[in-house]
Formats: sequence, structure tokens, C-alpha cells
Amino acid sequence: MNIPERTTVAIIGAGPAGLLLARLLHRAGIGSVTLESRSRSYVEQRQRAGILEQGTIDVLRETGASDRMDKEGLPHHGVELLFRGERHRIDFPSLADGRQVMIYAQTEICKDLIALQLREGGPLSFETDVLAIEGVNTASPVVRYRKEGKEAELGCDYVAGCDGFWGVSRQVIPEQLRKVYERVYPFSWLGIMADVPPSSDDLIYARHERGFALLSMRSPTISRNYIQVENGTDAHSWTDEDIWDELEARTATKDGWKVKRGPITSKSVTPMRSFVHEPMQYGRLFLAGDAAHIVPPTGAKGLNLAVGDIIVLADALKHKFTTGSDDLLTTYGERCINRVWQAERFSYDMTNLLHTNPNASEFEHRIELARLERLVSCRSATSDLAQAYTGFPLHTGSD
Amino acid sequence: MNIPERTTVAIIGAGPAGLLLARLLHRAGIGSVTLESRSRSYVEQRQRAGILEQGTIDVLRETGASDRMDKEGLPHHGVELLFRGERHRIDFPSLADGRQVMIYAQTEICKDLIALQLREGGPLSFETDVLAIEGVNTASPVVRYRKEGKEAELGCDYVAGCDGFWGVSRQVIPEQLRKVYERVYPFSWLGIMADVPPSSDDLIYARHERGFALLSMRSPTISRNYIQVENGTDAHSWTDEDIWDELEARTATKDGWKVKRGPITSKSVTPMRSFVHEPMQYGRLFLAGDAAHIVPPTGAKGLNLAVGDIIVLADALKHKFTTGSDDLLTTYGERCINRVWQAERFSYDMTNLLHTNPNASEFEHRIELARLERLVSCRSATSDLAQAYTGFPLHTGSD
Repeated sequence: MNIPERTTVAIIGAGPAGLLLARLLHRAGIGSVTLESRSRSYVEQRQRAGILEQGTIDVLRETGASDRMDKEGLPHHGVELLFRGERHRIDFPSLADGRQVMIYAQTEICKDLIALQLREGGPLSFETDVLAIEGVNTASPVVRYRKEGKEAELGCDYVAGCDGFWGVSRQVIPEQLRKVYERVYPFSWLGIMADVPPSSDDLIYARHERGFALLSMRSPTISRNYIQVENGTDAHSWTDEDIWDELEARTATKDGWKVKRGPITSKSVTPMRSFVHEPMQYGRLFLAGDAAHIVPPTGAKGLNLAVGDIIVLADALKHKFTTGSDDLLTTYGERCINRVWQAERFSYDMTNLLHTNPNASEFEHRIELARLERLVSCRSATSDLAQAYTGFPLHTGSD
Repeated sequence: MNIPERTTVAIIGAGPAGLLLARLLHRAGIGSVTLESRSRSYVEQRQRAGILEQGTIDVLRETGASDRMDKEGLPHHGVELLFRGERHRIDFPSLADGRQVMIYAQTEICKDLIALQLREGGPLSFETDVLAIEGVNTASPVVRYRKEGKEAELGCDYVAGCDGFWGVSRQVIPEQLRKVYERVYPFSWLGIMADVPPSSDDLIYARHERGFALLSMRSPTISRNYIQVENGTDAHSWTDEDIWDELEARTATKDGWKVKRGPITSKSVTPMRSFVHEPMQYGRLFLAGDAAHIVPPTGAKGLNLAVGDIIVLADALKHKFTTGSDDLLTTYGERCINRVWQAERFSYDMTNLLHTNPNASEFEHRIELARLERLVSCRSATSDLAQAYTGFPLHTGSD
């Protein structure tokens, strides 16, 4: 892969945000170069989210990278909330204007987008370290990078910072302009993959006095389950049997229903964080996805939020190259931020709703149980949850 | 007022809960004696809540004490949420199945119920100190009291503890059986009465970076307004002008709308507390209203919650005396407690939504603003609020 000296949009990071942007720009005839610090195989194997909102499904179809998703993805018409030993189903289509979600892992989306981009899109270079992003306040920003031991420069019109929470893009914005909002939760998720069919057709989110549990899936033969654990937990300090016992204890119902057990093929621990960085843009630098905001995984919003940003950004860039107008580019951040905060709010609420916070009082614990009761007994409250879960409206500016 | 030696139901406390119970029992032909430690004039002047849910309106009509309420009460079809300089109206009837609320002060309800009870109900004795409640685990509880310097006893079949948060009834339940859930908020309300027509037809609840404000009313010529202040504030440390300036700053809108000023006739500071005591019953003692639970005033739930308890309790007593069955009496607490926790949750959420908590992070502040945005932009979320504000369903057992 040769990297040219100049492109229209330099995309930093080949996670789902950067890859999707590259695809959307390619289809609009706008040149881009994508630089990713990790190897292709790392990106294709990094386990992350797996629940796609309708808007995410729609845009993936638009990119032409959706064949396998449409074949292998599992459409879901609801989720279940389990508490006090009872399961309560929330039906999405009837509560959220026909919307649904799809289970299809982020790793698979990345594989599909990478394959397509390498076949017919702009340059996509792995194992390429971005050293600096310069001149974003000028008409010609420059990205300095190192590849195979050699340093070089990529000139561009715009820079898209899609390099995640740990990336360099956000650091380009002067300290005095940056505002950070953050919450670190006093618990983590221990996630497992297991070679056993899902325990239920729907995802089951459980609140139990022992802590949160989630029964999810990756395919009709692979379960993806989680339990709340203490921060700093070593995944391998839990034996497989202990994990299944804990999953069973937290999700068992009064009528004797139990989680299905099977061989565990991977274990990992994920900390939980809420994070918003403002502004989302500075000069010709635009942040998207985890580079600008993080949500805890409870509401399945992280990937979808990144996709939302990219749709707004791609639209603004297309608008610029079609009309010459900067209007949508200059308002990119403000058109994203309400949706970002709605997703932050929803993820924060879902996290508090379902986890037992060791720092919370007995009063707060009972309040969350009352909130669960409300969510399953008041149709308006249930609809609010269903509509938030299946996706917030986008403000692309051109719609 | 002579107090007999024996009655069917001894009612401790002549606040709205005790007075309403006495009325409902009288109409069902069940004898009662009500003992109140304060004077009649104190009870009739104690400023408290003033927003009645539909269910509260209905039961007051049923007691025959509603003539003045129906003449002087102000029906309200909605409230407004004011934030970021904009007012957002929430219309109750269209969102909550035609339900509305009424502004009619608790003091006026007490006056109406006292007048009627003294005219045609069971004995109601003011300035009567309850010294002890004994034998609630036997068939013949005894209430020992002191009146005009003399001690005496009142035998009864049942005791209704309607003596509020500071009352003695709750203390009768053995320590080891009692569970208390509590939250004390890091702010209070400075409330004023002013001789000026209300600033708006609807109540206006405002969140401002300077703190919460509420523009309410007692009549077409009297405003009842509140601002969030620090705990421990002396109401008289605020000049009238400072109060109006602060109300104006917190409620001014972008289009130039402002609060109406007028002579302030009273000032007082109310601390904010959430409190739930379980169980709500022990033997033949039944707690109702503030004796069992306190909510912060933000959701206007305190009085209505007490009325809900009394409806359930009166129904259970009527059932006992009609059928001989203890079924509804023994399940009184469990049929109240879900509604209690729903009101606790709503009051807690409304309080967090509208106040600036000095201990909250910037992140949490933005989450509450996002919640306000959601509440005024998603019809399901708005409906959920409207339905909660206008009242939770009762489970009287006989319905």
C-alpha cells in the first residue's frame, strides 16, 4: 500500500468510524486516505460492540458492505429486563414505530468494510503511526506519520479524527478550548464467549442483588454473556464454573428458567466509562466516535453513536464538495452534540438501572428497582426506553 | 370535646391523612376518635402542599367536604418546564388520559375537613398529647394521652398512625423490624407568598445554573414562589428585592418574559428529604402519610401519597367491618408500598432534574439537561412525566 503525498480527507483510525467514513466518501467521489496504527488482523479481531440500530443497518447497506450482515446478522425485535426473578419483554416494533435492532459484531463490520475498501476505495494503511497533525487551522493540514520505520507527510484538506479514546487527534485541540465531562463507574464487565446457543431469543438484561448480568449472543451457536465484577478484576481469576454459577444465580427466574452452559472460549474484563469531549471540531479537524465520546456498554450505544457522527460528517463533506458551502461543516459539532448527550444520558441511566453500585445507598437501590417496575408497567415509560434503545434521530442538516 | 373511653379506630394526628380517614370511616358507619397534639388554629394555618391529583380530588368529593374546593380550587391542565431560557408546556389531559390536577392548599382542606368532622363526625380533640400506644399486638390496643393536664386512656380495635414524620406512632414498631431508607438533599427551598397574581396560568418549574425556581400560586391573586437555597439558610437573610431578583434571574426567558413582582407576605425555608419506613403496619397499628414516608416537594406528591394510603386503609377497614375478613388489613402495607416507591422515585427524579446539586459533577449536570431535552422532545417521555405527575394507580384490593 503506497500512501500518496496528498488527499482530500485524511482519516485517522480504521475502526468502524474511520472505515465507514472512507466508504461514504468513496461513494461520493471524495478522496481519502486512512491511517491505522494497528495491524489488519488486530482490527479484525478486536471484540467490541454488536448491536446495530436501524440507522446503522441502513447506512451499512448504503455503503454496499452489507451482504454478509444481511445474511448472518440476527434481527432482534426486543429485549428483556429481568429482576426479582421475573422476565419482562420489551417489544420494539410496537413501541418504537416498527424499528428493530440487529446483532452483528463490530469485528465483522470491520472485516466487511476493510475488504471492500481495499478492493475499491481510497488507500487504507495499517501499522502506520500518526506522529502529529499540524495546520488544522490552515487550508492545508498535514498529517505526519511513520510507516515501516520511515517518516512521511500526508497533506489534506480535512482531517477526520476517528482514532478512539486513546488516539492523538483530540490532543490537537488547544488545552484551553477543551472541556471534558467524565464518569468512571465503580464496576466492570467480565465478558465471555461460549460455544453454546443463546439462552433466549432476546437479549436479557438482569438486575440482581449480586449485580448485573447480560445474556447476549454473537450467532445462533455462540453466546456472549457478561457479569458485573469489581474494578481491577483479572478475568482469569474466575473459573469457568464460577462464571456460569454467577450467571445462573443472577438470571434464574421463579419459574425455574436457567442460562444455558457451554465451553467458554474467551474471557475479558472491560471497565465502564462515560466521557464527552467538547468541542468535536477545531479548524479542519473533526472528531468522531470514541475520539470524542465514550459510553458504558449497557445501552449498546457506542458503535451507533460513532456511526451517527460519521453520517453527519460525511453529509457535511459531501455538501461542501457539491455546493462549496461550509455551512454544514462549521455546524458539525453542534448538530452531533444533542444526540451524543442523549446517548450519554441513556447509557448512564441504563447502567445505573441495572448495576448494583457499591457506593449507592439502600434508598438509591430501591429507587432503581422502582424505576424498573415503572419501565415494565407504564407503556409510555416502556416506549421511551424502546425508542431510545433503537436509536435517536440524526440531524444531518441536509435532511 | 369529651373523649370516650373506647372507639373502633384511634386516629393519631389531625393532618389531612387523619382527618380524611375520620371522614371516610364516619361515612362508612365506623367509629373513630382523632387525637391531635397541636391546636386547631395551628393545624389550619400550617402551610404545606397545594397540588391535588385527580384521585385526591375524587375522594374529597366523596367525603362531602369539597364544596369550597370546587368553588375556589384552580384546575390545572399542565405544567411548564423552563430551561436554557425557554418554556416548554406539558399538557396533562392529552398525555394522561384526560387527567388534571387542582391547586387548593392543604390548609384549606384541613379547615374544610375539621369543620365537617366537628359538625357531624366522631370526636376530634386538639391539644391532646399521645404519650404511648400500647398493645397493638393484642385485640385491644390502648392509646394513652394527656389533655388539659390530665392523663387518660383510649381503648380501640385499631390505631391509625397519621402523626407525620416527627410523630410517635412509628416508634411503636420494634427496632429490629424497622427498615429506613433515606436521602437528605444538599439544598432547601425558600418559599414565599406574595400579593400578586400568578406570573403564568401554569406552574413553571425552572432549572437554571443558579439553581431551581418554581412559580406557583395559591389563588388568582396570590403567588407562591420558591427558590433553591443552601441548607441552613435563614429566610430573613434574604431581602424581598433579592428574592425577586433571584426568581427573575432563574426564570427569565429569551423572549423577555419575566416573573411578576409584588409585596411578599411570608417567607420560610423547607429542607428536602426522601424517607421510607418499612413496614407500614405492625399488629393493629397502621401508618399512613408522612408517618411512613416523606418526599421532597418537587413532584407535589406528599399530600397525594398520604391520601392514597388513607383510601387503601379506609377500604381495608370497611372490608373488615362488612365481611369480617382481615385480608385487606393484613396486606395494607404491601398494597401501598409500590405506589409509595413510585412516588419516591418520581420525586427524587424531579428533584435531581431541576436542582443544581453542589456535589454533582459537570457530567451529571449535563445529563440532567439532556434528560430535560428528552422530556420535552419525546412524546413517550413527556407522557410518562404527565402520567406520574397526575397520579399513580391505587391498589385498594376491593377494586
